[in-house]
Amino acid sequence: MSAADKTLTSIANPLVKEVLRLHGKQGRLETGLFLIEGRRELDIAAQRGVEIVRFLYNPEKCSFSVNLGQNFGEKIKVSNRVLERISYRGSTEGFIAVAKARQKDLRAFKLPASPLIVVLDKLEKPGNIGAILRTAAAAGIDAVLLSDTPGDLYNPNLIRASLGAIFSLPVFNVSANEALNWLNSHKIKIITASPYAKKTHFDYDFSASAALIIGSEADGVSEIWAKNAADSVLIPMSSAVDSLNASVSVAVLIYEALRQRRK
Amino acid sequence: MSAADKTLTSIANPLVKEVLRLHGKQGRLETGLFLIEGRRELDIAAQRGVEIVRFLYNPEKCSFSVNLGQNFGEKIKVSNRVLERISYRGSTEGFIAVAKARQKDLRAFKLPASPLIVVLDKLEKPGNIGAILRTAAAAGIDAVLLSDTPGDLYNPNLIRASLGAIFSLPVFNVSANEALNWLNSHKIKIITASPYAKKTHFDYDFSASAALIIGSEADGVSEIWAKNAADSVLIPMSSAVDSLNASVSVAVLIYEALRQRRK
Repeated sequence: MSAADKTLTSIANPLVKEVLRLHGKQGRLETGLFLIEGRRELDIAAQRGVEIVRFLYNPEKCSFSVNLGQNFGEKIKVSNRVLERISYRGSTEGFIAVAKARQKDLRAFKLPASPLIVVLDKLEKPGNIGAILRTAAAAGIDAVLLSDTPGDLYNPNLIRASLGAIFSLPVFNVSANEALNWLNSHKIKIITASPYAKKTHFDYDFSASAALIIGSEADGVSEIWAKNAADSVLIPMSSAVDSLNASVSVAVLIYEALRQRRK
Repeated sequence: MSAADKTLTSIANPLVKEVLRLHGKQGRLETGLFLIEGRRELDIAAQRGVEIVRFLYNPEKCSFSVNLGQNFGEKIKVSNRVLERISYRGSTEGFIAVAKARQKDLRAFKLPASPLIVVLDKLEKPGNIGAILRTAAAAGIDAVLLSDTPGDLYNPNLIRASLGAIFSLPVFNVSANEALNWLNSHKIKIITASPYAKKTHFDYDFSASAALIIGSEADGVSEIWAKNAADSVLIPMSSAVDSLNASVSVAVLIYEALRQRRK
């Protein structure tokens, strides 16, 4: 049996430890690596040129053939026991890919004309952020800025909930000050979404560049964004006790902007 | 110590068994009772006249004073251990209310003029259904029909994800045939949401009565609805791999209808 045919069966193997370390934010930041566990996310990552360093798979559970391409590294067969040990989400797709994080520099990002940007202000839950990225990608938003977010971009729950949008959409993890300076330097209007706004989003003219600031459900928009906003819009709701989650709000706002911008 | 001051401390008590039975669909259907564990959901239920049969609470954890009103039944102090045992969602709000399910008869439901109805076609996950009800309530939808849904209306995850909208919104659990006959008898146009539609929702005229049929993400709209639809609309998306979850789709469609209907 050649080395290539060997199956990794020991959970004491250093590779197992390496993967487990990437379950945590600290390990991801220190190594610049992260994990991909879903087929759909892997496909989008591969299409977008994300470099896969190692691909650990169980041949009985992982039946699909991956387009290896240029950016695929080492393929390693692992036992079911090892796969279960290293999986973050109780993998049902039979593989875990170790991928290289890309530095995304906001200053180097080339904006299209009249961009629509979404700024997520201090959002914390990776699953919520991922769901918003999915919505933002479908709605054709030009970029998403995570402003003062405690987590990193490559949390496994974020990647999963985004259904791969984390790889297809320009997403930047920045401080509120960086985001603000960048938006101002590009003359992009700052618009907060707020239940206290006087104007509905239907009455706002989205034809010019705009950055929509979405705060957390519990706390709303931070002071720095409220102070620096050019305008504020509300999504009308049926009654005062009603609310929409952040992902739904983003979609409703952006689709109104898209409608207005259609020829 | 009077009987009213007694604290229920034994998990062998028949009341504990009664509550546990309501965790399951069978127990809820057989008794006509269900559980409410969240403060917000309880408030909305109370406002809407839902009858609370029993209110089990731990005085150390349940610090709020509930407006008892006419419809409040027996109040029973329970130990923390009992509360943890009977809680479905690992209650952090210190109480569990046993409430009486109401029979909701679609035929008796009085429709407003030019209604907007949402039909959820074979949706299964109670959390997803609940999230859609929350969105539907905020967007001011007139009624939601659950068509051929395997679950019941009072699943604890559905109630929770709805944030109480299950109590404030007319929601009916019916077969596809019942739903179809009812919509036809009221001359409400059946519109499916489909990625294969030729017309976008921006181009659809929502001024007349409409029922939007939302299928599951995996399977889309069932044959019975596809066959009986008067029209079909799509929400335009950035690329073919993108998708929106059902709750987001409902919001985008309904807010476009609301925009068109504004004076």
